[in-house]
Amino acid sequence: MRVLGIDPGSNITGFGVVDRDGGQVRHVAHGNLPLTRTHTLPTRLYELHELLLDVIERYEPDVAAVEQVFVAASARSALVLGQARGAVLAALGSRGVIVTEYPPSQIKQAVTGSGRATKKQVQSMVRRLLELAKLPAQDSADALAAAICHAQAGKLAALGVAPASRRGRSRRGLSVAVRPVR
Amino acid sequence: MRVLGIDPGSNITGFGVVDRDGGQVRHVAHGNLPLTRTHTLPTRLYELHELLLDVIERYEPDVAAVEQVFVAASARSALVLGQARGAVLAALGSRGVIVTEYPPSQIKQAVTGSGRATKKQVQSMVRRLLELAKLPAQDSADALAAAICHAQAGKLAALGVAPASRRGRSRRGLSVAVRPVR
Repeated sequence: MRVLGIDPGSNITGFGVVDRDGGQVRHVAHGNLPLTRTHTLPTRLYELHELLLDVIERYEPDVAAVEQVFVAASARSALVLGQARGAVLAALGSRGVIVTEYPPSQIKQAVTGSGRATKKQVQSMVRRLLELAKLPAQDSADALAAAICHAQAGKLAALGVAPASRRGRSRRGLSVAVRPVR
Repeated sequence: MRVLGIDPGSNITGFGVVDRDGGQVRHVAHGNLPLTRTHTLPTRLYELHELLLDVIERYEPDVAAVEQVFVAASARSALVLGQARGAVLAALGSRGVIVTEYPPSQIKQAVTGSGRATKKQVQSMVRRLLELAKLPAQDSADALAAAICHAQAGKLAALGVAPASRRGRSRRGLSVAVRPVR
């Protein structure tokens, strides 16, 4: 099973890919999606959407894991984060990738053994668990942690269920039509 | 000048298209994007993204107008709305459509003469201004109101500026590459 973890953000979106092979969790790739800072928001969201499609096409994940959002965030930051998540989820939806959301505490617990671990502890444990040569950047580490959490979860507590035919759907494949009122 | 107004929402997204021809604002089309309620969030956001691309392709707007979001909303509703806006803005960004955001009060002012008008007053005035046979549904009316606001604004107080070549960009046309760290 191949898991794509994503840590969406409007400035930096981290991703991490791991394989679960029996009881082993193996590192495949991780990185940040390089958004162009000078672009406008719509163009950046488009970029984010396209870059994530590239990641999906390159690594062909079976499932995706995303951190649930703290409702404690301000409305302003929730809106900004929501917009990034919208572009990310639309891309995952377009490829029929099953998306599971995990509370931050569950992700930390899975990686460090403590639901209250610091960001640094998560980074450090992600590195150890995946035997990485270097400490991953924070957003990539968070994305890898979400992927590890899902890979270890054993059974898929899927909050979102993909359509029956997951693969090979064209991006325009939904049989929906715009019905304007004239 | 052709203006596409959008009222994004995760359940209902309204759109409205008007032409500004000299001093006249003329109705072209309006409607709601029919999202499938039974689908999961990622699939619905994908649907929203695709349906909006269909609207853009069909009506070829020069610019788009979207209501600025009340920061007074709760973090939860801001996240949900943000996700819908993310899918919408990514679609507009993919086609290089310039997006302008207007405060709700400015949209109401432009359509009814009062920044504190009710939803019903907006619906009613949109119908009168565009000489519609029927009262438009609320989300379509709000979308048309945003489009009218922009059409009347005269000059483009564009908050977002599109790339130089607006037309004919392929959806995969950005020269960006994923740089995974292995």
